[in-house]
Amino acid sequence: MAVGLKAPADLIAVPGVRLASTHCGIKPDPAIKDLTLIECAVGASIVAVFTQNRFCAAPVTVAREHLSANLETRFLLINSGNANAGTGDQGLQAAYRCCTDLAKLTDVDSRSVLPFSTGVIATQLEDQFIRAALPSLLADLKENNWLDAANGIMTTDTLPKVISRQLLIDGKPVTISGMAKGSGMIKPNMATMLGFIATDARVDQTILDGLLQTLVSESFNSITVDGDTSTNDACLLIASGASGVVLNERNHDFVDALTEVFQLLAQAIIRDAEGATKFVEIEVKQALSVDDAREIAFTIAHSPLVKTAMFASDPNWGRILAAIGRAPVDQLEIDQLDLYLGQTCLLKQGLPDPNYREEAGQREMDRDEIKITVDLNAGSANARIWTSDLSYDYVKINAEYRS
Amino acid sequence: MAVGLKAPADLIAVPGVRLASTHCGIKPDPAIKDLTLIECAVGASIVAVFTQNRFCAAPVTVAREHLSANLETRFLLINSGNANAGTGDQGLQAAYRCCTDLAKLTDVDSRSVLPFSTGVIATQLEDQFIRAALPSLLADLKENNWLDAANGIMTTDTLPKVISRQLLIDGKPVTISGMAKGSGMIKPNMATMLGFIATDARVDQTILDGLLQTLVSESFNSITVDGDTSTNDACLLIASGASGVVLNERNHDFVDALTEVFQLLAQAIIRDAEGATKFVEIEVKQALSVDDAREIAFTIAHSPLVKTAMFASDPNWGRILAAIGRAPVDQLEIDQLDLYLGQTCLLKQGLPDPNYREEAGQREMDRDEIKITVDLNAGSANARIWTSDLSYDYVKINAEYRS
Repeated sequence: MAVGLKAPADLIAVPGVRLASTHCGIKPDPAIKDLTLIECAVGASIVAVFTQNRFCAAPVTVAREHLSANLETRFLLINSGNANAGTGDQGLQAAYRCCTDLAKLTDVDSRSVLPFSTGVIATQLEDQFIRAALPSLLADLKENNWLDAANGIMTTDTLPKVISRQLLIDGKPVTISGMAKGSGMIKPNMATMLGFIATDARVDQTILDGLLQTLVSESFNSITVDGDTSTNDACLLIASGASGVVLNERNHDFVDALTEVFQLLAQAIIRDAEGATKFVEIEVKQALSVDDAREIAFTIAHSPLVKTAMFASDPNWGRILAAIGRAPVDQLEIDQLDLYLGQTCLLKQGLPDPNYREEAGQREMDRDEIKITVDLNAGSANARIWTSDLSYDYVKINAEYRS
Repeated sequence: MAVGLKAPADLIAVPGVRLASTHCGIKPDPAIKDLTLIECAVGASIVAVFTQNRFCAAPVTVAREHLSANLETRFLLINSGNANAGTGDQGLQAAYRCCTDLAKLTDVDSRSVLPFSTGVIATQLEDQFIRAALPSLLADLKENNWLDAANGIMTTDTLPKVISRQLLIDGKPVTISGMAKGSGMIKPNMATMLGFIATDARVDQTILDGLLQTLVSESFNSITVDGDTSTNDACLLIASGASGVVLNERNHDFVDALTEVFQLLAQAIIRDAEGATKFVEIEVKQALSVDDAREIAFTIAHSPLVKTAMFASDPNWGRILAAIGRAPVDQLEIDQLDLYLGQTCLLKQGLPDPNYREEAGQREMDRDEIKITVDLNAGSANARIWTSDLSYDYVKINAEYRS
């Protein structure tokens, strides 16, 4: 029961980026795609970020190693159904074999191929299925294939998450399309958040890398379902250059459009979060630092008591207050703090607002989309994150997943 | 449905410490006690620790202020049913009035009285009920009254938590009795963990303070239900001196008995945790530092995915592994790590133990009391903490509390 998540519409091909998706045999149901290939044009800039979890999956290790060779990345190969995590050397060899086979078929260096996996962990990857499907997958590559690809990378997502934007820059069209998967920061055994975003703008590799860091920080690293990060998380940004329009981080229209794509994809993960009945935005304003603002926001977002109050539509602001009070920040002046639920003021300078009425708080909490604003009145740093509530269904999904 | 929590038995009076409990009118049901008084003999050493939450309740502010005057503490006055938190200056004045009235009746300085509150937050304390009940409460004080007192400080606890130990030191009996309340680190609105432990040993105030820090670290600060700390948490240790036996931190029998009382009371809170169906001990061994060991243990304990797996009795060790991998420690060598569920080895040096069978893991998870051991094989520091699972009932209790 995704919260306000719409089916994809108006997807636009990104010149220089071709995609294909198929069923190769990792998932049992032959009607469900489990293998996706993305081909990037020669000369494209490609940058990536990966999970910070020390238990990273075999494909993450291999992808990092291949990127460190500083060769041109040409192919992204993504299987769903098996995360190839907790699989030791055997898992590494499986990932290497997939890259090598694809490299041979396309006459590129095997380090020009990056592997990605998502699905069950601690089960060996049946890479023979993947390798057997490569020729037909290559034959199927086309630019206008984002929806298929977004379906192909899904695990327990209830809807594909894929979006396009197009803008005119100096009279020339520039396109951005992106897809993501994930319905928890980590799924029970179905690990992983994956994001693949592409544009046909030409962007220098170093500039693109800086952009990705900022964009991920304000999108995929600003969402949380349960505080758990996966062994397989990865996000890639591709600039094919096929539009011929050269851009950098100072082109605000372009950066704004990219930001929108990243944020809508990240928010789609929260809207589709396990058992979610509420989509919650938490904004912390006028903090002493962005780190402080984020720490406070995430402490609220991770509090099971705040999350269950959201689920119950209960304007129980004492729980928000208690979460703020235990946030790991050095300095926090409670008596300067204002707290809002939507437009309704709960606390003014650390004390209950005398004008607050329970009915007003109840009205805010009854909505599907809830906004919590904490104004610290201390500095000039802000942060905004998104989270879901904690419902019976969250427990059900995560308690019953394997049984 | 407390996990293995027994009704109190064999309580022993602590000479020099008298207690009384009554119904004063804060809770609606006249059959339920809501006000408790503890009197400490002249010359007793008394030390305290309080919540680290910046939003601390009025009684915490007043108790800290009174302690800082360095006068002898003579009375601890504890009401349940109202936490007097989020109540601003009005709440502070109410706490002061209670102390002043009790001080007048007993002819002590008002700073010799420490107030404690637990219950609903953001509701003004009706201190007139408390003050009116003081004369009869004083008349009721007696040493053999621990069970009544433990009942009087309860909020949503399903059973009173109170325990006694007696040992002979140089042929003389030394007694320790303690009580605690709490069934979450913070209750929805019913905030608070409170602990009051007393002995008739004579212990120097400075030594007693050092002992309390260590004891709390290994007991009340080693438990977690949901990671939320309350606005009202407090723990006090009283050494009345009435036994005439002078002790310090080097008397191991005494420290061991004290440790046992602290740990059993802390564990009782977890056994009685909201919706708990499992009692989980997490031990992290051979870490580089105690801080590292504790960070890893708490990251496992707070993971909603680990907690729901416990609830489902699901030996889904991938979730434990992912939690360890994201723990905020500087150094973590995955390929040195061993992981056990009870006596069953899951991971050896970071890889699945080839001898592991799902049936063995299932057997461990089917128990009510589950032990997770992480051996980092890195240093010599250890930590042990206790937590509960995340059940439908946790969501139910916390979602439906106010509705």
